[in-house]
Amino acid sequence: MYYIGIDLGGTNIAVGLVNEEGRIIAKTETPTLASRPYPELVRDMALCICKVMDEAGATEADVQSVGIGIPGIADKDGVVIFCTNLGWRNVPLRAELQQYLNKPVYIDNDATVAGWAEFKAGVSRNTNSSVFLTLGTGLGSGIVINGRIWAGAHGAGGELGHLIVDVDGVPCTCGKRGCSERYCSATAIIRMAREACVDAPGCAIMRAVNGDPDKINAKVVFDAAKEGDTVAMQVFNRYVKYLTIVINNVISSLDPDMIILGGGVSRAGDFLLDAVKAALPEYLFYPSLGYPELRIASLGNEAGIIGAALLGKE
Amino acid sequence: MYYIGIDLGGTNIAVGLVNEEGRIIAKTETPTLASRPYPELVRDMALCICKVMDEAGATEADVQSVGIGIPGIADKDGVVIFCTNLGWRNVPLRAELQQYLNKPVYIDNDATVAGWAEFKAGVSRNTNSSVFLTLGTGLGSGIVINGRIWAGAHGAGGELGHLIVDVDGVPCTCGKRGCSERYCSATAIIRMAREACVDAPGCAIMRAVNGDPDKINAKVVFDAAKEGDTVAMQVFNRYVKYLTIVINNVISSLDPDMIILGGGVSRAGDFLLDAVKAALPEYLFYPSLGYPELRIASLGNEAGIIGAALLGKE
Repeated sequence: MYYIGIDLGGTNIAVGLVNEEGRIIAKTETPTLASRPYPELVRDMALCICKVMDEAGATEADVQSVGIGIPGIADKDGVVIFCTNLGWRNVPLRAELQQYLNKPVYIDNDATVAGWAEFKAGVSRNTNSSVFLTLGTGLGSGIVINGRIWAGAHGAGGELGHLIVDVDGVPCTCGKRGCSERYCSATAIIRMAREACVDAPGCAIMRAVNGDPDKINAKVVFDAAKEGDTVAMQVFNRYVKYLTIVINNVISSLDPDMIILGGGVSRAGDFLLDAVKAALPEYLFYPSLGYPELRIASLGNEAGIIGAALLGKE
Repeated sequence: MYYIGIDLGGTNIAVGLVNEEGRIIAKTETPTLASRPYPELVRDMALCICKVMDEAGATEADVQSVGIGIPGIADKDGVVIFCTNLGWRNVPLRAELQQYLNKPVYIDNDATVAGWAEFKAGVSRNTNSSVFLTLGTGLGSGIVINGRIWAGAHGAGGELGHLIVDVDGVPCTCGKRGCSERYCSATAIIRMAREACVDAPGCAIMRAVNGDPDKINAKVVFDAAKEGDTVAMQVFNRYVKYLTIVINNVISSLDPDMIILGGGVSRAGDFLLDAVKAALPEYLFYPSLGYPELRIASLGNEAGIIGAALLGKE
């Protein structure tokens, strides 16, 4: 049996046919062009589904279900309540897609879906509980408890990017202040680096971007830190401190078997992971008890398709 | 069938015989005298168990199990790893008690147990998920997800008093800084009130304690706030802000059906609850989705015995 997974992003719609083991058999993508009316986006999803089924020689009878990961949330009826990048409000995504393919359609938040992919077919495969953090433009998260997705009683849970970690701190896009997303995302690294570079125009970060602070990104900062640049190290250490505080909050609340770092910033791999592991022990409330294993995500960009597809296997 | 519940506190050991409906049939208590060797405390627990069984005319055959709520945590073998007020480390509580009564013995954190009591027999009885916050000397919590206690993969979860909500904030007894316990406990109210009273020696709080700041407690502050005293209102509003931030963090992570306020500070009832309810909407990330019901705990001090007893019913 196969499962269709759709990763609905602000830039591209990626669609894959996934097998029972969570491997992608066929894959395609098409530009989202988010400003179009939603029925056009859904029609493109359906076309992509046809394409991957054709490519794999699969028929409708071979497909169990369709899953969609969205940068937002949907209610139990498959209506997208809110979808940031697409500007969607109350879009009946499930009903619309079922006009093309009469299969169960599952919809969940993209970070939740990526965490589910790691749990079903990736690095947290053999755990009972896990928290997945995507460190990208924002900070998304996906919670698995007792082998099941936990997204809250009203679907508003698993938004760890909006934990407040600094009372009266940096204003957040959500309207609150001090949300963890403002300290642990790639966006936060860029902001902190720009601030630090004002007083250090000759630092390795500024040299790497030819003096243009608008060109600073997380990779430039981390690369300069790896080379030992003082300013970059300060930004990196500050980022690690904030990320460790969020991990502390995950442990003090949920204490899962494993905490997984995904998203663009996690491509720093062991450089980031080792720094967080070194900082964490002083935050542990019960140091003798054991604590979650910290790992880098293993499925990369494919987690979106795989996790969405495997929503149908829950 | 009956269940024995033991509420092991720093001051008293309270023991009750609880029926299937979660009602206490017989109850007794004895001073903890915490500095004694632990076998003496356990012997006193056993004596109290005999006493409540006698009182109810129950035999060993009528007792299903024993549950103990402790101000600390135990591992899966019933060994108390850590117990603040008692100074216990690695005490084999289950094995010791089973020398007196050969029944299953369940041990869990006191706040977890109180949350379980409310879930099984109190205000959150008809929910699927709940987070219980005890606002007392510290800030304890108990998490129920999908009808089951969630205390973490290593038993270190459900410690919401040690969520960091203010980077580099007030130093905590745990060694970290900015833990929510430092802002949301009765201890925090006293600290904030003392600070505020330094510049306001004539305020209603100071009048109530005859000018002695050492006599300030949470009730004095809230009573003065109810009367409209400006300084007391400032402290109260600050407390409500912090508590709402913790509730925001509970919603953004777990989004349970219900959030329950217990512990001494919660005796302020609607005065506190209404203020938190008024402050909460501006913190909601998805205002249209619905959010947890906020309630005051219903079982009061009996939650410790009832919840411990009903650990055997999970």
